[in-house]
Amino acid sequence: MKDSDEFSFLKKTFKSLGNQYFDSSGILVGPGDDAGLVKNSKETIYSVDASVAGVHFPKYLNPENVAYRSLSTAASDIAACGGALKWILVSLTIEQSDSDWLSGFVAGLKSFSDTYHCPILGGDLSIGKEVNIAVTVGGELKGKKFITRDGARVNDIIFLTGKIGMAKIGLDLIQKDFDAIDLSSENVNKFLQPKLSFDFAQEISDYANSCIDISDGLLADLGHICTASKVGAKLELKDIPYVGKVEEAMTWGDDYELCFTTAAVNRDKIHNIAKTFRMDISEIGEITSDKEVKVYKNGSLVTFDKRGYNHFNE
Amino acid sequence: MKDSDEFSFLKKTFKSLGNQYFDSSGILVGPGDDAGLVKNSKETIYSVDASVAGVHFPKYLNPENVAYRSLSTAASDIAACGGALKWILVSLTIEQSDSDWLSGFVAGLKSFSDTYHCPILGGDLSIGKEVNIAVTVGGELKGKKFITRDGARVNDIIFLTGKIGMAKIGLDLIQKDFDAIDLSSENVNKFLQPKLSFDFAQEISDYANSCIDISDGLLADLGHICTASKVGAKLELKDIPYVGKVEEAMTWGDDYELCFTTAAVNRDKIHNIAKTFRMDISEIGEITSDKEVKVYKNGSLVTFDKRGYNHFNE
Repeated sequence: MKDSDEFSFLKKTFKSLGNQYFDSSGILVGPGDDAGLVKNSKETIYSVDASVAGVHFPKYLNPENVAYRSLSTAASDIAACGGALKWILVSLTIEQSDSDWLSGFVAGLKSFSDTYHCPILGGDLSIGKEVNIAVTVGGELKGKKFITRDGARVNDIIFLTGKIGMAKIGLDLIQKDFDAIDLSSENVNKFLQPKLSFDFAQEISDYANSCIDISDGLLADLGHICTASKVGAKLELKDIPYVGKVEEAMTWGDDYELCFTTAAVNRDKIHNIAKTFRMDISEIGEITSDKEVKVYKNGSLVTFDKRGYNHFNE
Repeated sequence: MKDSDEFSFLKKTFKSLGNQYFDSSGILVGPGDDAGLVKNSKETIYSVDASVAGVHFPKYLNPENVAYRSLSTAASDIAACGGALKWILVSLTIEQSDSDWLSGFVAGLKSFSDTYHCPILGGDLSIGKEVNIAVTVGGELKGKKFITRDGARVNDIIFLTGKIGMAKIGLDLIQKDFDAIDLSSENVNKFLQPKLSFDFAQEISDYANSCIDISDGLLADLGHICTASKVGAKLELKDIPYVGKVEEAMTWGDDYELCFTTAAVNRDKIHNIAKTFRMDISEIGEITSDKEVKVYKNGSLVTFDKRGYNHFNE
C-alpha cells in the first residue's frame, strides 16, 4: 500500500474520503502509511470483489459511476451475511495517469462513503492495460448472526427483497446510448447504484436460515444456497416480482436484491421487520428436498435456457 | 466473493488452502460463502497491493512464482508495521480459463500459506485482458506497537536489514532468459520469493520510531519516512550493504528489506534482537533536520539520476 510520487494524488484524496467516519469504524491509522490499523471488539466480516471494465461494466461508463458501482457490488456481500459495513480498501488499476478520470473516480468513492457512512481505509494504484477495481470490504456483526448459504431447511419460506430484472433493463439503456439516457431512470440507477440494505439484513439475521445477494441471477444464486444447504427450491412465477423479459429477469444478475429463507414460524416477524424498514419483500416459494431449483407457472414446470449470466464481454 | 459454475475450481481449492491455520488465525467462516468471518480480540492491520503482469513481474513468469511473489509483496506491509500475518484475500483476474495455469497459481498460494502459516480467507476470480492479482492482507499486533512512517526523530539511527540490489540482479537474469536461469540463484529467489521477517519486525517495534519496507528503492522509501516524519536523512555509502550497480541498488525496489529508525539509546537492544533472529542488519546513517535524503561517499555528496523506480513496463 505504498505510493510513488506519481500516485500521491490518490494518497491525498484517500485521506479525506470518509475520515469523519474513522471513529465510528474504529480506524486508528488510516490511508498514508504502509497499512491501516483498526480496533476491533467484535467478529469481523471480509469479502473481496473485482470489477473489470468491459466485463462487469461498460468501458465508457464515467468514473463516478464506476467507483460507486464497484464499491456497491463488493459491499453487497456484507449485507448478504447480515453485517454492518465498516470500511473499504480499494486496489485500482488504470490504463494511464489521468487526473480528470481519477478525480471523477474519487467523487464516486466519496459519494458511496457518504451514503453508507463508510470510510476508505486505504488503497493501491497501478497502471495496467484495463481498468480493474478490486474492492475489499470489512464489516461487523454487531451482536447479530452471520447468515450463511448453507442453513436453508426443507419447508423454509423463500423471500426476495425488491424486484428483479431492473438492472438488466438499465444496462440495456446504458449500452444503447449512454449519452442520451436519463440518469434519473429507476432502472439505470438500479444498475449503477444498487441500494444495499444493511440495517434490514442485520435485523432479519436472527430469523433467516440462509441468505445470498442476487449478483449472478435469482436462479443461479438460489442454486448456490440449495447446493450449500443440500436442498432444492420450488418457485411460483406469479409470486416473483420482476420486470422485463422473464428469462433475463430470472437469470441475469446485477440487481443485488437479497434472497433469504426462514422457517414458516418466523413469517410474521420477517414481514414486521420489512415494514419497519419500509422494504418491499415477497414470498416467492419454498425450500424442498429434491436438490433442484424448479420454477412453476400455474402448476406447470418452466425451464430456462440460461441458469445465470455472469458478465457481459465487450 | 461469489463464484459461478465456471469458477468453482478456485472455490474448491481455496477451501483447502491453509485451512489447518484457520484456528490460529481466528477464522470462523472461510472460503465458499458470501464473505469470511474472523474472530478478533485485538487491533487488526490491513493493506492491499496489486501485482499486474508486465508491470510488477514479467508476463511469462510461471503461475507458482506469480502467486507466491504477489502474496509476498503485499504481506510485506504487515511486517513493515510490526504486525503478525493472519490471513489473505486474493482477487485474481486472468486472461482466460486455464486450469493448468490456475493449478500452478494455487500451488504458489499453498507454498506461501505453508511458509508463513497463513490461511487464504477468500477470493474472487474474474476474466480480463491481463493478469492482475489484488492481494489484501490482514495482520495483528499481538500486543506490540504499530510502527508508522511518521515517527522518525532527528539523530535516530537508520537501520537496514539484509542487502539491497539483489532483486534487480535476479530480475535481470529472469528477463535475460527465463528458461535457462538457475532457480536456486539467491538473487533470482530474492525477486521471486522475498523473505519476510514478521517475528523480527514485531520484536523491534517496541524500539523503532519508524519503519518501511523497501519496495520502491531505498532512497524513495526512506524519503517516504522523511516526508511523513518531517525530517531528513544522511547516509554513508560504504555502510550500505548492496550488490550490483550502486544507482540501481539505491533506487530500484523489489528487495522488500526493512528500513527502520531508532533512538541511539536503543542501538544495543536492536542488535541483540537481530542476533536472536539471525538477521543481518546494518547501521546505514542517521536522521537529520534538513528534510532531504543525502548520500555521502567518503564525505562527498553523491547524487543519483533516479530517486526510485517503481515498475518496469513490457
